[in-house]
Amino acid sequence: MQISRRCLLSVTALSLLATSSPVFAQQPQKPNVVFILADNVGYGDLGPYGGGELRGAPTPRIDQLAREGLRLTQFLVEPACTPSRAALMTGRYSIREGLSLILVPDGPNTLSARSVTMGELFKSAGYATAIFGKWHLGKDPQSLPTAHGFDEYYGIPPDMTWDSATYVDKIELTHSLPAPRDILLARGPQIVEATAGGELRNVKPFTPEVRANIDNELVQKSIDFMRRQKAAGKPFFLYLPFSMGHIPNLPSGEFKGKSRIGNYGDKLMEGDHHVGEILDALKELGVDNSTLLVFASDNGPSGEAFREYGNEETPDMGSPGPFRGELGEATEGSIRTFCFIRWPDTIKPNTTSYAMFSIMDFFPTFASIIGTKPPGDRPIDGVDQIDVLRGQSATGKRDSLLSFIGGDLVAARWKQWRVYFTDIYPTGIGPQRQPGPGSASAPMAGYPKIFNIEMDPHEDLNVFGSFPFAGEPAVKVVEEYFASVKKYPNPPPPNITQFQSGSGR
Amino acid sequence: MQISRRCLLSVTALSLLATSSPVFAQQPQKPNVVFILADNVGYGDLGPYGGGELRGAPTPRIDQLAREGLRLTQFLVEPACTPSRAALMTGRYSIREGLSLILVPDGPNTLSARSVTMGELFKSAGYATAIFGKWHLGKDPQSLPTAHGFDEYYGIPPDMTWDSATYVDKIELTHSLPAPRDILLARGPQIVEATAGGELRNVKPFTPEVRANIDNELVQKSIDFMRRQKAAGKPFFLYLPFSMGHIPNLPSGEFKGKSRIGNYGDKLMEGDHHVGEILDALKELGVDNSTLLVFASDNGPSGEAFREYGNEETPDMGSPGPFRGELGEATEGSIRTFCFIRWPDTIKPNTTSYAMFSIMDFFPTFASIIGTKPPGDRPIDGVDQIDVLRGQSATGKRDSLLSFIGGDLVAARWKQWRVYFTDIYPTGIGPQRQPGPGSASAPMAGYPKIFNIEMDPHEDLNVFGSFPFAGEPAVKVVEEYFASVKKYPNPPPPNITQFQSGSGR
Repeated sequence: MQISRRCLLSVTALSLLATSSPVFAQQPQKPNVVFILADNVGYGDLGPYGGGELRGAPTPRIDQLAREGLRLTQFLVEPACTPSRAALMTGRYSIREGLSLILVPDGPNTLSARSVTMGELFKSAGYATAIFGKWHLGKDPQSLPTAHGFDEYYGIPPDMTWDSATYVDKIELTHSLPAPRDILLARGPQIVEATAGGELRNVKPFTPEVRANIDNELVQKSIDFMRRQKAAGKPFFLYLPFSMGHIPNLPSGEFKGKSRIGNYGDKLMEGDHHVGEILDALKELGVDNSTLLVFASDNGPSGEAFREYGNEETPDMGSPGPFRGELGEATEGSIRTFCFIRWPDTIKPNTTSYAMFSIMDFFPTFASIIGTKPPGDRPIDGVDQIDVLRGQSATGKRDSLLSFIGGDLVAARWKQWRVYFTDIYPTGIGPQRQPGPGSASAPMAGYPKIFNIEMDPHEDLNVFGSFPFAGEPAVKVVEEYFASVKKYPNPPPPNITQFQSGSGR
Repeated sequence: MQISRRCLLSVTALSLLATSSPVFAQQPQKPNVVFILADNVGYGDLGPYGGGELRGAPTPRIDQLAREGLRLTQFLVEPACTPSRAALMTGRYSIREGLSLILVPDGPNTLSARSVTMGELFKSAGYATAIFGKWHLGKDPQSLPTAHGFDEYYGIPPDMTWDSATYVDKIELTHSLPAPRDILLARGPQIVEATAGGELRNVKPFTPEVRANIDNELVQKSIDFMRRQKAAGKPFFLYLPFSMGHIPNLPSGEFKGKSRIGNYGDKLMEGDHHVGEILDALKELGVDNSTLLVFASDNGPSGEAFREYGNEETPDMGSPGPFRGELGEATEGSIRTFCFIRWPDTIKPNTTSYAMFSIMDFFPTFASIIGTKPPGDRPIDGVDQIDVLRGQSATGKRDSLLSFIGGDLVAARWKQWRVYFTDIYPTGIGPQRQPGPGSASAPMAGYPKIFNIEMDPHEDLNVFGSFPFAGEPAVKVVEEYFASVKKYPNPPPPNITQFQSGSGR
């Protein structure tokens, strides 16, 4: 595999970071940052959000995390894996990166050399950086995490998600063995590793057995990385996007059958255990108080559309809590999920914030914390939410959010109002569900539709007829977005037809 | 109004209480008990259950209550007002009292002289007792709270609910003034009062203006009652079934427009304020630590069936949280709601219990706490849950619950399994909604249907085909119930046709 010209460009991108202060790695005020990202775990799945024990899958370590930190109740994301991860990594709507649908392997839309990621942000501030797990932003050299500020990378194929572990078995099942299994495995999805600027190396085939044990591997790599940085006296940024929640939820040995709800619950409990392992490691390494830890999900749960996984009795189905919908839709159940932030010296324990907080907001918030700045040559959609972390602002700096699917602006939130501009379920991964009774039975078919997400969390009652004005601030937000697009045009969006025929999720 | 023979019988009922210890009113170990009951407030409406600020109606005093006490997450009730209140008052399924539907004014089904209520339980243990608010178990002399152990009573018509305040206006609107308004008001629903054994006295017409201010009145009466008992050195039982949550949600002056979601939210915030007033009064009276306080709702929220109230923009709609359905149905969203218990010297602050805890369980639990016993001559369906309060049992003594509507056994829960035996929505007050996709699309129409409420909180997926055995323990519970009915026959159940043509809700 060659280092391409585009890869070199991405190194240049580092210099675009407008670093506001010189880097002193030993500065004590710079916290370590650990970002654990679950996959398709819903708002209602974990203990502190009404799930956990209540769902038949106790999550005691996550309950403990909630008691020790801040619980966000309006943590807002994009409707699927790749889009949310692109938004997290760049602080921008994924559509600005051409990544507003789940990545299709071998498709044209991958992270560009010009993109500036959170890896580069931390790198520019003198951090040691690592990602262990699922990248899902592309396998081309210029798209890799190690081309974007990460020193170390170990994980599943960078253009695929967790169910790629089953691809070979599916070929065997559906194509009556076109080749011996060992050849299929060698050519199929691989566990990979790389270091900054280096080549991507295959480690081993990504099989269902590896899938079941992968989170153990990732957590051990994480602890080893933290231990090494602690020994070197270097602040670190660890990004741990692990598999908790994603189909197929194959639990590792000791967790099989541990919950009352099948594999999905077993994997919630395993994830809880892993979060606990990271918390324990921070304490053991003596960096407990100097580390900011985030634990969040990338999007709403996989629901009815994913019943085929697992089996009829115990489908891999998460809960969106009181909200409507699931992964792949633009409904609240898809774009709102859980988020905990623990930072002992700054964040008051056992607190809850109702502030609207987007996954994009971590980029400028971290920049503010580590004394650097997001790139100044492009729109940054995230806002600095440090005041929410400090408990100095109840509402934070965000009062709106747009939701895109593919090339379409589907919906906007402004405060409690949700405005839909177009068909609610266009992705093809959602369950082609009927819209709520309010929209189905209202005399005016068509759009916009407006829901009051506070009064009507389940989006049953379209109030466009009585509250058209509630859409006006949202329209203003949309206009501002389009003005920015005029100045900074988006790359071509991913093609939804291509996506629907693809295998990625 | 005469004291009837049946009323005298109910005095006799007192003697049926198998008091296990002699009464010493000054015994310091006997806590005061305050039971605040909200009306049609849903599982998802209050702050500690994911509502409150998140719903556009902050509930800071209730959030405080949660931090100071125990939050039950499986508090189970009956599907409507009268049934739940009958179950609370008697510790038995409402069907055993002939009260398994909402009371129809002038109907034959009211609380019988033979019934033994919580009022009688506390009275027999030397408590001063009072109820301020909604009784809803009948206006006949033998059915009144003051015929069942309550020393003092002030409230709305004992056979009606909160919307009776609008009856006169409705007559005016629909019958073009058959009589002058003052005559209609004098003959219409009245605010009433009574003392033990005395007659029911009309205080004033129950108008919308009185409705808007009623909770202020009830709370002031409550505080005055507590103050008098404290001065007299007498332990007290205060039952405060106030109007928070029930249509029409007319907020009192200062709360009008205070929430972001209209009258329903305003009334949640007003209720929060009133709960705070009671907490403050307990502190001011110095009985803070010696008082056991319960705050709960009687059943799930009024939902789509009640859209007509309020208006299109701000209907009086509550949220069932992650569960399906609303008041009047037998779904989980109707029979599970919130409950807080605060008892400083016994209950650990800021705790949550997942134990199944029925509204019937308070009767034997209180009996255990105050050193007396439920009557021994009839089935008591409640179980003593003192170990849950003390934090000594995570699961408590209950693992099943039956749900009746009218004369029908509609559903049963056994642990996480919900089993439906018959049509899910037979009451006529629910929204004749389609059953969930699992039941609608399953190849076998018909019953039983089985849902795993932990795996599938929204009851989307009927798993009868794969888990028929999950229904077996529930069937055993049903058999035990029918055996007890054979020994202790139920009175005739209320007639659903009569109910559907009646005006009560």
